[in-house]
Amino acid sequence: MYFFVNDYNDIGRKDILQALLNAQDEYNLGYGFDSHSENARNLIKKALKNDNVDIHFIPGGTGANVLGLACGMNQQDSIISVSTGHIEGHEAGSIEATGLKIETINSDNGKLSLELLEEKYSHFNSEYVTVPKKVYISNTTELGEVYIRDEIEEIYDFCKSHDMYLFMDGARIAHALASEKCDYTLSDLSNLCDIFYLGGTKNGLLYGEALVIVNNELKRNFINLQKQKSSLMAKGFVSGIMFETVFSKENGYLEGATHAYKMAKKLAEGFTSNGYELAYPFESNQVFVKLSDEEVDSFQKIAKFELMGKRDNNNVGRFVSTYRTSNSDIEGFLEEI
Amino acid sequence: MYFFVNDYNDIGRKDILQALLNAQDEYNLGYGFDSHSENARNLIKKALKNDNVDIHFIPGGTGANVLGLACGMNQQDSIISVSTGHIEGHEAGSIEATGLKIETINSDNGKLSLELLEEKYSHFNSEYVTVPKKVYISNTTELGEVYIRDEIEEIYDFCKSHDMYLFMDGARIAHALASEKCDYTLSDLSNLCDIFYLGGTKNGLLYGEALVIVNNELKRNFINLQKQKSSLMAKGFVSGIMFETVFSKENGYLEGATHAYKMAKKLAEGFTSNGYELAYPFESNQVFVKLSDEEVDSFQKIAKFELMGKRDNNNVGRFVSTYRTSNSDIEGFLEEI
Amino acid sequence: MYFFVNDYNDIGRKDILQALLNAQDEYNLGYGFDSHSENARNLIKKALKNDNVDIHFIPGGTGANVLGLACGMNQQDSIISVSTGHIEGHEAGSIEATGLKIETINSDNGKLSLELLEEKYSHFNSEYVTVPKKVYISNTTELGEVYIRDEIEEIYDFCKSHDMYLFMDGARIAHALASEKCDYTLSDLSNLCDIFYLGGTKNGLLYGEALVIVNNELKRNFINLQKQKSSLMAKGFVSGIMFETVFSKENGYLEGATHAYKMAKKLAEGFTSNGYELAYPFESNQVFVKLSDEEVDSFQKIAKFELMGKRDNNNVGRFVSTYRTSNSDIEGFLEEI
Amino acid sequence: MYFFVNDYNDIGRKDILQALLNAQDEYNLGYGFDSHSENARNLIKKALKNDNVDIHFIPGGTGANVLGLACGMNQQDSIISVSTGHIEGHEAGSIEATGLKIETINSDNGKLSLELLEEKYSHFNSEYVTVPKKVYISNTTELGEVYIRDEIEEIYDFCKSHDMYLFMDGARIAHALASEKCDYTLSDLSNLCDIFYLGGTKNGLLYGEALVIVNNELKRNFINLQKQKSSLMAKGFVSGIMFETVFSKENGYLEGATHAYKMAKKLAEGFTSNGYELAYPFESNQVFVKLSDEEVDSFQKIAKFELMGKRDNNNVGRFVSTYRTSNSDIEGFLEEI
Repeated sequence: MYFFVNDYNDIGRKDILQALLNAQDEYNLGYGFDSHSENARNLIKKALKNDNVDIHFIPGGTGANVLGLACGMNQQDSIISVSTGHIEGHEAGSIEATGLKIETINSDNGKLSLELLEEKYSHFNSEYVTVPKKVYISNTTELGEVYIRDEIEEIYDFCKSHDMYLFMDGARIAHALASEKCDYTLSDLSNLCDIFYLGGTKNGLLYGEALVIVNNELKRNFINLQKQKSSLMAKGFVSGIMFETVFSKENGYLEGATHAYKMAKKLAEGFTSNGYELAYPFESNQVFVKLSDEEVDSFQKIAKFELMGKRDNNNVGRFVSTYRTSNSDIEGFLEEI
Repeated sequence: MYFFVNDYNDIGRKDILQALLNAQDEYNLGYGFDSHSENARNLIKKALKNDNVDIHFIPGGTGANVLGLACGMNQQDSIISVSTGHIEGHEAGSIEATGLKIETINSDNGKLSLELLEEKYSHFNSEYVTVPKKVYISNTTELGEVYIRDEIEEIYDFCKSHDMYLFMDGARIAHALASEKCDYTLSDLSNLCDIFYLGGTKNGLLYGEALVIVNNELKRNFINLQKQKSSLMAKGFVSGIMFETVFSKENGYLEGATHAYKMAKKLAEGFTSNGYELAYPFESNQVFVKLSDEEVDSFQKIAKFELMGKRDNNNVGRFVSTYRTSNSDIEGFLEEI
Repeated sequence: MYFFVNDYNDIGRKDILQALLNAQDEYNLGYGFDSHSENARNLIKKALKNDNVDIHFIPGGTGANVLGLACGMNQQDSIISVSTGHIEGHEAGSIEATGLKIETINSDNGKLSLELLEEKYSHFNSEYVTVPKKVYISNTTELGEVYIRDEIEEIYDFCKSHDMYLFMDGARIAHALASEKCDYTLSDLSNLCDIFYLGGTKNGLLYGEALVIVNNELKRNFINLQKQKSSLMAKGFVSGIMFETVFSKENGYLEGATHAYKMAKKLAEGFTSNGYELAYPFESNQVFVKLSDEEVDSFQKIAKFELMGKRDNNNVGRFVSTYRTSNSDIEGFLEEI
Repeated sequence: MYFFVNDYNDIGRKDILQALLNAQDEYNLGYGFDSHSENARNLIKKALKNDNVDIHFIPGGTGANVLGLACGMNQQDSIISVSTGHIEGHEAGSIEATGLKIETINSDNGKLSLELLEEKYSHFNSEYVTVPKKVYISNTTELGEVYIRDEIEEIYDFCKSHDMYLFMDGARIAHALASEKCDYTLSDLSNLCDIFYLGGTKNGLLYGEALVIVNNELKRNFINLQKQKSSLMAKGFVSGIMFETVFSKENGYLEGATHAYKMAKKLAEGFTSNGYELAYPFESNQVFVKLSDEEVDSFQKIAKFELMGKRDNNNVGRFVSTYRTSNSDIEGFLEEI
């Protein structure tokens, strides 16, 4: 049985498990005040080529979104997002639970654009509405799309000139950076937004995301907020060890995603050359393919994958590759279909 | 250097690390819908001798408190707690951040009693106050105290007859159960309150608590709430594997705490026989001892421990034992002081 | 200058001002526990032909919406509304500020329908989303539309069979009931939903709405919630006097709205017979008419009214009639255009 | 029957009722954008001798407290108050409902002092607690006490030097200013704190408080917040007319309170000279007197007043005077007891 369900279904990279084992006789201070966490933060700053950022390790993506969006906000402030944004439809009201409204934009794909943002923003000109203060984008998006530099910079410039902050959900930022479509690097990220995170859960860690706060206005008393939102782990050093392991290797954060991208590309090309049609353009480690009911049935006999509703009367099957997906997984699967 | 700072400063039990390693080539469904989690839940139900409970794995104690207290609440409802309760003074406003007020009672020690509860409750007789709906106790308390059965039952009976739920913070419930003072067992817990949790973080896991919902009224759509509060881990199977490991052994949940209790008792007796005075009665794995400034200085040269403010003009040093504390740690330390 | 801006721009009905004057030497108990409020509640129950409802006086529409939607909710619960709903776009995030998410439906007009509701509801089938628990409709809608009985009953039946409550925003319910399109009466309302309110602010009172709770499950400790949300007035008897005045007259609640409807109808017919095209069908006291830029300019010289954006490349002018609008207002205005 | 229950049990000053009548044929813009509100704001600025403040009319005291405390806050921020503060015990969790924690101080009387504040603040030195950002005082306090200038300035200086804002609950600020103990005037208030309100409900208005924002950091998008919290009245001009009426007279805001103070003083002296003992020192329009059970019974036959629990085994009766209390009310009552 081939496994393409998601990128968080295995326990994690072997080097990370080994690093945890290596630390089993250590005593470390709690709540991220340990030396592993400190070292990990320094390694990340180096990779970002930016010493002037604050880095906090958050156990999961929902928490990273909540904290990244709630920090620095007053109660009348709101968040602009496309309606397919993860925070709008897949987090059970986590943002609203903190009192903040998400103001949504319908987008043809999963992306925000300057045009959409400008149009939406133009409606916020009275006292009877919220005050847009942060803009949310995810990269890659829910549909596996990768933002290019110009797209982000246009949005970020608009934010800066309209007293808003740009937040980038980076649950799959490694997969965006590993894409051939991507025209910027890890070290550019802190110039492209006010706050973002480097996903770990979907990139080979047992759990954990590294939230990076670029804008000084968002840094005040962040750890208190993190504690309040149940996202400050007592054994913070576990995250510290994991991120330290990943970032202590040259290109360590991207190596798994780069491999996953190659496998996804091979799969996408295999689908196409076998006569299948992609439901969305191939851009990253998620491949969406149109399938008839019969194809779904036969595929499910040999592989696990998710169905994402319908598009043009076809089923949409989603196939996700990871750092663990092997050449033989792809080749074997393509042969059998 | 001896280490008595806290019970969450090492990475975790060796059997747990081994279990994680054993699972490294598995694919598991996300969000707790995997077979390890299912197995762990069944093992816990067996240990509790109660099939009719819902069990959810939460990454940390703050989240377990937030979820255990927020579930089933309407917006006018409030929580009664002693003012030394962990939720009141050590969680950065996590409960209030969900909109719920904590109504506090000053207690001479860290415990709630029926008398205190009755007196407090009598003030809630108007429309200008909140509506007390849950009562919070922690066991052991912040001061390491252990509730006996009668104390809990009196409180629980009052709750039941006054339309309130009793929540037990079990971050250190293993340490309470391991105490010689404790006159009930693990399998009694689901008869003593409406909802509680079995702490893992302070009992040898990398992270994680198992929240147990006894009262049916509190079970509805709990996972949605868990997702909303950033406490539903994508790789939920990691918690599943850890709790499965612990509960698959006869007495597995208590073995570490039982050892820690023995070590703490030895330490407490050692302090006393060396002429030191305990600041609070010895009841569990936390030993509080009165120290002069000079004693603090000399102790800090050989051991790490926390200072908990002053009591009767003495410093109060807190020494915490864990499943890892060895006989030689205690003996060595006692010899050197 | 003719005045058609809104239905809340005058201080109020003369009989209400007189009633306030009459009470100027009285002492009354605070917070709605006075005899005027009690009498008003009884008169309203009589008008509704339902003794088994709870009635609370709320100072304004936002508060009535917040309270009517927040009562009885757990934190994972959400509210379904069309995206043009007042609570979604005109209340500055008031619902989300209480922690609750609004799940929105795009509707071609301002109405919810069973079909739209069914389709939306079908997406809430996982743990990663909120739990729809209330459905919000406004009657009249933001666009002045009136629900007919069948439309409401279909929605209400769906709510009842899917563990949801139906809330009806009645800021302009008097204007709905006064419409010739309406096929139910005031005394039917408590059979058509779980909770609703009888608007006062837009129906000739200085301020105030009467929230009517039909479903027993939503009644618990409501006044505590009302106090919490800043909507319990110390001088509650002022609302009591106003609603008592209105409901002590036969048909008193509808007389102003009935007049307003007649004036609006005359205006709508006048527009049409003068060659103007209505932007939306005429149904209640709001008349929407398509205007060229030149027409806007010339109209603004003789009347005050609001512009509601564009429709089919025309400006949409909104003209609102009230209990004060006179025949000569309408005739004079129609003559001058 | 003499009436000393509270200062919000009559409908309001005759000049205010007359002003409302005078406006009955006007059309005014909604939401406070009318000329009466603008005029009222200008008159208040003049009375405060400060043009650089923002003034917003709020329907009631709870709303004024919520808005004054919530504005400018981030989610980790908290409010320091004495535990007898109105927001802590009499508003049904209104502050916590916005997500903010109140950090309470036990005070022997109803007042905060620099010493108490310093001691409390010293505990907020970790990441596991909230971040105190506002200090709440009420003037007069719940017990009718009046702060003198030095007391306020000490607290305000501490706030300024510790990155906190001082909020003054002014539900009864007129009664404080009217006290002989008060050593500052209305025009000093904007120099004594960052934000406060001028109570109307307890000072002869039908309803309404005027919130005054002194510190620029708290002014941003306030009306959006006011709308969100259900405290922006559609017919905002009603408040405008009332405050305009009061402030258009020389000393208009204090005249009623000054009279009430004289009556209260007469009553307090009368109690004392009749052999009754005051439960708290007389300072403003609330007189607290110790009563035996028999005295309570006999008093209740001739007057309405509140019982405030026990003090030194005596009942505490509270007698409140208002702008309406007459000499003959006081004399008559004193004669009969």
